[in-house]
Formats: sequence, C-alpha cells, structure tokens
Amino acid sequence: MVPFEYYNPTKILFGEGKIAKLGKEIAKSGVKKVLLHYGKGSIFKNGVYDQVVETLKKHNIAYVELGGVKPNPVISKVQEAIKLISEENIDGIIAVGGGSVIDSAKAIAAGSKYDGNVWDFFEGKAAPESAIPLFVVLTLSATGSEGNPFGVVTKEEENKKWAFSGGVHTFPRVSVIDPTVQFSLPANQTVNGAIDAMSHIFELYLDGTPENDAIEAYAEGLLKSLMKHVKVLLEQPYNLESRSQLALCAMLALNGTTRIGRLGGDWATHTIEHSVSAFYDIPHGEGLSILFPAWMMYNLDIASPKLAKLGGALFGIDEGSDKKSAIQFIHKLREFYSEIGAPVTLSERAVSRDMLPTLAENAAIIAPIGRLKKLYKEDILNIYKLAYE
Amino acid sequence: MVPFEYYNPTKILFGEGKIAKLGKEIAKSGVKKVLLHYGKGSIFKNGVYDQVVETLKKHNIAYVELGGVKPNPVISKVQEAIKLISEENIDGIIAVGGGSVIDSAKAIAAGSKYDGNVWDFFEGKAAPESAIPLFVVLTLSATGSEGNPFGVVTKEEENKKWAFSGGVHTFPRVSVIDPTVQFSLPANQTVNGAIDAMSHIFELYLDGTPENDAIEAYAEGLLKSLMKHVKVLLEQPYNLESRSQLALCAMLALNGTTRIGRLGGDWATHTIEHSVSAFYDIPHGEGLSILFPAWMMYNLDIASPKLAKLGGALFGIDEGSDKKSAIQFIHKLREFYSEIGAPVTLSERAVSRDMLPTLAENAAIIAPIGRLKKLYKEDILNIYKLAYE
Repeated sequence: MVPFEYYNPTKILFGEGKIAKLGKEIAKSGVKKVLLHYGKGSIFKNGVYDQVVETLKKHNIAYVELGGVKPNPVISKVQEAIKLISEENIDGIIAVGGGSVIDSAKAIAAGSKYDGNVWDFFEGKAAPESAIPLFVVLTLSATGSEGNPFGVVTKEEENKKWAFSGGVHTFPRVSVIDPTVQFSLPANQTVNGAIDAMSHIFELYLDGTPENDAIEAYAEGLLKSLMKHVKVLLEQPYNLESRSQLALCAMLALNGTTRIGRLGGDWATHTIEHSVSAFYDIPHGEGLSILFPAWMMYNLDIASPKLAKLGGALFGIDEGSDKKSAIQFIHKLREFYSEIGAPVTLSERAVSRDMLPTLAENAAIIAPIGRLKKLYKEDILNIYKLAYE
Repeated sequence: MVPFEYYNPTKILFGEGKIAKLGKEIAKSGVKKVLLHYGKGSIFKNGVYDQVVETLKKHNIAYVELGGVKPNPVISKVQEAIKLISEENIDGIIAVGGGSVIDSAKAIAAGSKYDGNVWDFFEGKAAPESAIPLFVVLTLSATGSEGNPFGVVTKEEENKKWAFSGGVHTFPRVSVIDPTVQFSLPANQTVNGAIDAMSHIFELYLDGTPENDAIEAYAEGLLKSLMKHVKVLLEQPYNLESRSQLALCAMLALNGTTRIGRLGGDWATHTIEHSVSAFYDIPHGEGLSILFPAWMMYNLDIASPKLAKLGGALFGIDEGSDKKSAIQFIHKLREFYSEIGAPVTLSERAVSRDMLPTLAENAAIIAPIGRLKKLYKEDILNIYKLAYE
C-alpha cells in the first residue's frame, strides 16, 4: 500500500426528495445570495429547476441565474459569471447539472475570489487560495465532479481543454444526488456516464500500485455494480435501485476513495481521449470505450497481472496464465461495451485513419503521459491504430 | 438502496513517518496549546511519544500532558481533563493511543466547550454544539474511532458504559495512522482489533437493508482483507502491507462508508457483548468472536440470505440453499476465529452458566435491541446459551 493523505469534506445528500434539503444547508453556511448555474435547460423539463427554486425561496436565499453552460464548459462563460458575481454581490454558487456545469462552477467559485485571470489556475500560474461556497444538484452521473475539487474547462481560442484543482477550496460544500431526476435521461447518456465512471476506476486500478487488497476489492465491486446496473437501465430506465447504484458508484469512483493507498492513477487514456474529442464530436464516454481496451492491449506486458485480476473479478476468467487471462478480459470488456451500445473502434465513429498522426501529435504535447508506462507520440499513435478497427 | 446523508471531514495521514506532519496541521488550525492525552504509557516504548513531541516543538505548539486513560475510559478522567483545559487555557487536544484514548478525548473536546456536566451528552440531556479541535495519533487499529465522531465512556459508579456522538464537532480534524507503530503490538491485541473491525462490518451488513450491491461488495472486500492479513500478522508481525491493510480496513469499517445506503446497522451484538465485559474481564474483541456467531445462528431465518452471500464471498460456500449456506458460513467463521486464537464460547472464558440470566437482564435494560430483529430479554438469554459451549 502506498502511503496516502485523504480528505474529502463534501456532504452528500442522496435519495429521492433530497433537493428540498438544500436551502437549509445553504442558509446554515451563511450564504445569502447565490448564482444559479446550469446548462442548456433540461432542468426545466425534469422538474429540478422548480425544486431548487422552491427550497431557495423557502429559506430566503436570493438568486441570480446564469444558464447556457456547454457540454465542454468554456472559460469565457466562467469569466462572464465572475463579473456577474462581483456586480451582484453574490456570495455562493449552485451548480445544477452534470459534470460540465459543476466544473464551470468550480472555476467560477475560485475565480471570484482571485484578483487575476481565472485561467491562471489552469496554466498553473496561480493556485486558488479561497473560493465562494459551492453547492451541487447533480442531474447526470458520470464525471464524479460532485465529490471532488477538480474541474475541466476549455479555452476555445487556444484549443486547450485543461483541468485545475482548487484543493480544499473547491470541494462542493453539499452535493445533492437524487437518482430519480436521472430517470428520463437518454440511454446513451446513461451509458456514457457509466463508461466514464468505469474508466476512472480503471485509471486508478491500473496505475502500477503493487498491491492493495481492500481498495482493489472495492474498485472491483464498483465496476461490477456499474456493469450490472447500466444493463438493467437499458431495459428499465426507471429502476430506482439501478439508478441509485449508478449514481453512487460514479461519485465514489472519483471522490478519492478509489485512490487510497495507490500511486495516483495512470490517466494516459484520458489524455489520449481528449485529443480525439477535441477534433471530433464524440462524447467522452464513447472515446473511452474505444480507447481503454486499446490502451490495455498496448500495455499488456506490464498490466497483465492486474488485468487478469480484473478478469477474474468481473467475468470469472481464469485462462491459466496472467497474459492469456488479460487478453480474454480485454476481449470480454469490448464485448460488454458493444452490448450496451458503445463503440469500440475509432472507425465506428468515422474518425479518419489519416488523422491518427495529428491526434497523436496533439495528445503528445504534454508527453510523456501515463504512470504505468510513460507514453510518447509513437506509443500514442500505436494505441490509436489498435483502436482503429 | 436506502436514502442517506454522508459527511466525514476527517483528514487521514496514513503511512510511515506521517506523525512528523501533525505539528504543521495543528499550527494551520490555529491551535496554540494542546492537551496531550494518552493511556498507560506504551507510547513511551514504541517511540510514538517522542515523535509527537518533536513535531509539536518544531511548530511551537505548547502542550500539557494527561495520561492514564484506562482501556474502558472513565468519565472522571474526562472531567479532570476538562478542568485542566480550563485552568491552562488549552485550545486543542491530541489523542495518542487507541480507541479508548480517542473516545476519552472526544468527550473532553466537547465537554470543554459545554457549561454543564459532560455526562449529559451520554444521558441524551444535551448535544454538543461545539468542541475544541481534536487530533489523533493512532496506536491500535480496532474501534475505528479515528475516523468518526463517536465515543464510548464509562461512568463507573453507575455501571454505565455509554456512547455519545458529537456530530460534526467531534470528528478528528486530522488522524495520523502510521501502521509501523503497531509492529510491536501483542498478538492478541492485533487479533481483537481485527475482530472488532469485522464486527462493525457485520453489524452494518446484517441490518436488514434489502440490497446495495456496491456497498456490500465493499464490505466483503474489507472482511476478506482483514481475515487474510490478521493471519499473516500472526506469523509476521512486522509485515508492513498487512499492518497497513488492517489499519486501513479498521478505519473504513466505521467511518460511515460501510453505512452508505443502509438502514444504520443492527448493533444488538455490541450491546449483548458490553453486558458480558461489564461483568467479566474479557476484551471486547473476544466477546464479539464468541457472541456474533451465536447472534447469527439465532437470527438464521431472517438473516440467511445475507449470511449465505457472505459465505460465498468469504469462503466460496454454496450449499444449494441460503439456509444451508448460512449455517456453513457460521461454522466457518467460528473455525476462523479459533484459528486466529480467539474464543468462540463463553465457557472458554470462564463465564458461569448461572450468570447468563443476570447478563441478559443487564443487556435488556434498553430492550428491545437490534434492528434486523428486535430482541428482548428472552432472546438475549437464548443467544448467551447458544454461545455458551
């Protein structure tokens, strides 16, 4: 087990009807006026907006709205919000949405307490030293942003989709996860959310940590539950237990618990994927279902023992040798992704083979990437080729 | 899954050498002078005292010592400490020890901010509204107190061994868990710690929650790791990975994560055990290894499905029916406890058969107890009889 430090002060309110408790939590924090931050308006259709406004009014919390956050949130919107917060004397923020809205809100929360340009946090030129309190009402389980201090925001004019951490300052104070608000999600969003969560677990499980029985068993349990319940939801989108399991597992996948006693995650596949979705309009989850099996295959020699362990835990695979079991696991994982309607090759999403070198070059800007094995441009290109068809 | 609220702000510093980081954490919190609270002096032998004093001195934190906490901490010591804190203008507390010292420190931390008698918290006459900051250096993994806000303290003159929770106020700010300081523990303390942790997991797993795949898999993983590594430690007490797994699993067993989406635990067996250790000098862990299998057997009809699931996960048992598998699981669990040197019958610890009605009467003072099945005096007596030989 790797020595570690763990801290996560986010309060989670989980279950049907929990949105009604948010106003009291905000009032307790001393916040008087919040920015109500959301995306493209699905919250008006599923009743979440009404529930949020009701609890705010009940507790006399004033609010100013700023919607329109894009699936890849942009820094210009963050800057617009920071200006609004200053003009309107706003002292807190509620993110009502999925990972994009939450990530945008984290940048806003930290940026509104910073004198310089908020993009400095992403460039590593400054680190947040405070933030206005952030509250979350989650509408899509996928990124796990509801339970951690990280945010990914895009600076469009420079094609930079970069991450920052606000450290202790940008953990949500309270995150409300009501799985019933996800009943009406389109199937592909449910699937992509599950794949994103699975990928976070893979990144941490496959980072080269020699051993950690308890946390690996925990990770395997999360993966099994995600795989079981995403299938149930394709048949029964209103199944409460399965929505709850997906929501719980996606939050736990990246709230620091799966990182306990590990080296910190590999994360190469996320970088390799970001390069694809920067050039093609492919959802992050689909990029990951295409690329993670390829990354596993490319790293077969070094990753075999843990891949074989995953194969045993998730599919009951035991082929006699780690390498054979690992190959069988990758095969079964691809099959599983296909069964839930996710793509497993770049060609399925009309990526041009001619573009692969460009994608590799782009991903390799910050090379070497990855922890299990350091990957350079050539490695990345080989992974794209393995993922091609 | 049962709707839930989860909050745990304790920062965990885990690994060899982490004690050296405590002074900085205390300084960051603004605390200037701490009460250094400990037990009977093992911390002078294993070097922990010296490490703690060194980090305090380095960060200019003054300290006043109060040792002598008993294995079952008493309220008179808590009151002595509260007086000292007031006289000496102390504004923080470090518990250096196991669960007893930490529990005592929690009562002190909350009591020193309360005008009335600290025992009011245990009687339910008052709830803590604040506390001085509490820091922990753990020397024995067992109770999980290092990661939660609960404390158990005894009022000797009334034979009351009761619990309180300080809510958000008595979570340790920082808990340092350096598994290497446990290398030199006597084998029976290691074993009893593992059994205590296992029992916390059982209480939550067997509370009647209909289903929760992810958290049950997590609980099973913790149990497997505890069972594997306690055996390793009996042969190799200096095995760092095994000490780390035991320490991690004991903390996670009762830090709220195993309670996620569950009904809240059964806890009857803990009450039934407390009655035994109130009359006999039997360690809590030994009482639990004797009584938990008996509780399981007594509740066989209602608990069979989950006992069978545990049997499958921990021992690969599949007897064809839940009931048969459950019986086989209880049998295997008893075998396991015997293998690690723990008692499995009351007669092994010289409890008199004539005393069983008295023990049952004492445990039944707060009857009915338990959540899976409400237990009354007759039930409790039957469980003692099942556990007798």
